[in-house]
Amino acid sequence: MSRTIAILTDFGYQDNYAGIMKGVIRTISPFADIIDINHGIPLGDIKVASINLESSYAYYPRNTIFLCVVDPGVGSSRRAIAVEADGRFFVAPDNGLLTPILNKGKVFQAVSLTNTNYHLYNPSHTFHGRDIFAPVAAHISMKVELHELGELIDIASLVTLDNDSKTVNGDFQGQIIHNDIYGNSITDITADWADKKKRSKDLSCRV
Amino acid sequence: MSRTIAILTDFGYQDNYAGIMKGVIRTISPFADIIDINHGIPLGDIKVASINLESSYAYYPRNTIFLCVVDPGVGSSRRAIAVEADGRFFVAPDNGLLTPILNKGKVFQAVSLTNTNYHLYNPSHTFHGRDIFAPVAAHISMKVELHELGELIDIASLVTLDNDSKTVNGDFQGQIIHNDIYGNSITDITADWADKKKRSKDLSCRV
Amino acid sequence: MSRTIAILTDFGYQDNYAGIMKGVIRTISPFADIIDINHGIPLGDIKVASINLESSYAYYPRNTIFLCVVDPGVGSSRRAIAVEADGRFFVAPDNGLLTPILNKGKVFQAVSLTNTNYHLYNPSHTFHGRDIFAPVAAHISMKVELHELGELIDIASLVTLDNDSKTVNGDFQGQIIHNDIYGNSITDITADWADKKKRSKDLSCRV
Repeated sequence: MSRTIAILTDFGYQDNYAGIMKGVIRTISPFADIIDINHGIPLGDIKVASINLESSYAYYPRNTIFLCVVDPGVGSSRRAIAVEADGRFFVAPDNGLLTPILNKGKVFQAVSLTNTNYHLYNPSHTFHGRDIFAPVAAHISMKVELHELGELIDIASLVTLDNDSKTVNGDFQGQIIHNDIYGNSITDITADWADKKKRSKDLSCRV
Repeated sequence: MSRTIAILTDFGYQDNYAGIMKGVIRTISPFADIIDINHGIPLGDIKVASINLESSYAYYPRNTIFLCVVDPGVGSSRRAIAVEADGRFFVAPDNGLLTPILNKGKVFQAVSLTNTNYHLYNPSHTFHGRDIFAPVAAHISMKVELHELGELIDIASLVTLDNDSKTVNGDFQGQIIHNDIYGNSITDITADWADKKKRSKDLSCRV
Repeated sequence: MSRTIAILTDFGYQDNYAGIMKGVIRTISPFADIIDINHGIPLGDIKVASINLESSYAYYPRNTIFLCVVDPGVGSSRRAIAVEADGRFFVAPDNGLLTPILNKGKVFQAVSLTNTNYHLYNPSHTFHGRDIFAPVAAHISMKVELHELGELIDIASLVTLDNDSKTVNGDFQGQIIHNDIYGNSITDITADWADKKKRSKDLSCRV
């Protein structure tokens, strides 16, 4: 087996869109190790996708390629990008999905996916997962270098999501981003802050 | 890895039926590359299954084996078949699921799966996915030839679904077959017709 | 590819918990063959999980490692175990999930997973799937022996679920454990009994 391609989308489980992407990958990369992380991201919810990526990527081995398609802006002028960070690769729309990687990871390089030689021929306006992101991820698994996929771009130019959590009178105020299947609420309060707080006084929650 | 087996069913995601089929495949074919296309086909909906197959199969590499189990007639006298077309293999009940392959593909040969040597021992009347289709797909991945799996049959004898779309006063009338997770309606109007129409005048839709 | 790791959980398909476990496995075991059996077990339903395991495990090849995480007691004193039976390996909480294996299988040995060298560093109290069970399954796929994973324990000490089905006046009374997607009701009446009954007189069902 060659490199792992780990897939994260909002495609759900009723349609064959994830299955089509896996076919595209297998055609280009006969030995890639294809793993589904999750296709259950709420439709178009970039923030939940970014949190899913944040809590999973470090558990994957170095050289894993994360194929992340939550792309409400498909067909608009938003860029398609690939980023190398923390020894791994991330292929996604430039819409903030990669925020945790960009904010915390050691980002090595980023590229705008403008070289159409690595896309499917005659791509659609509505399914860049199939026509651009999946083929690019597959080519990276075949050891195509990032700089061959398009133009190197300034990392500071990449879109990141704001984190609205803040400290108010010594308390921390954040937002619930997602409720999981077990009824746990996932907030945008980071572990860093929680750790700090724990050391000073008890954590409290005002609902 | 040996050949890819791509699986399409209406088994859903609550039960272990797809998981059982994958065990059967792995036991027979230690190195087959098993990929889930989609298990979310509406129960027994052969037409939606055929459209899912149509929009995905060409993205998979040659020699892929498509294991398609939407089988409301299981236990009846409907045939179990394997078809070689467009350099790929399709294992399914003979109920119209393979219509797009049979109508458009370059069909090389078809066989009725009557050789029980390639089935599980003592197959049930209710789960041919496990007992017949999965083992046959696994054996094809191990390079068993189609003619060994049963009797070669006339391609014209295979069941196909009607397409009720038609031209009325120069307009095209079709049916919505499926609404996807994004709210797109998939119709039985073919791209061929849409292309033709586009060249003559604007497409219109009367709801 | 090395040994198969087949995964059965109640994690569902909205969250990335199964995807995180697959990353942990791949990091430890670069060539393990990872297969999803089913993540759709009703939340915390150990009985349904045990029935899913019962109806699938024998279809998988020898040396398969079953990673079973339906774990309502996570963080309590329930043991984490690995069992070798019928030439296969089962990694799970000691909560009855493995009942069919323990009752019917040829159990070779069982171990309590107390050797933290084979867990992730600093495990959480809430996600032993990621921190204990997945790494242990991955290490078994790398041919770590069971006795290295912790203390050998008495097989008779393992938790098993009661089967409340019983014979009353020559009739058999059982419970419906689960209704599948097709509307089939799965009961706790065993095939053994049904076979015996069939040989004596017709099966009857009183609803």
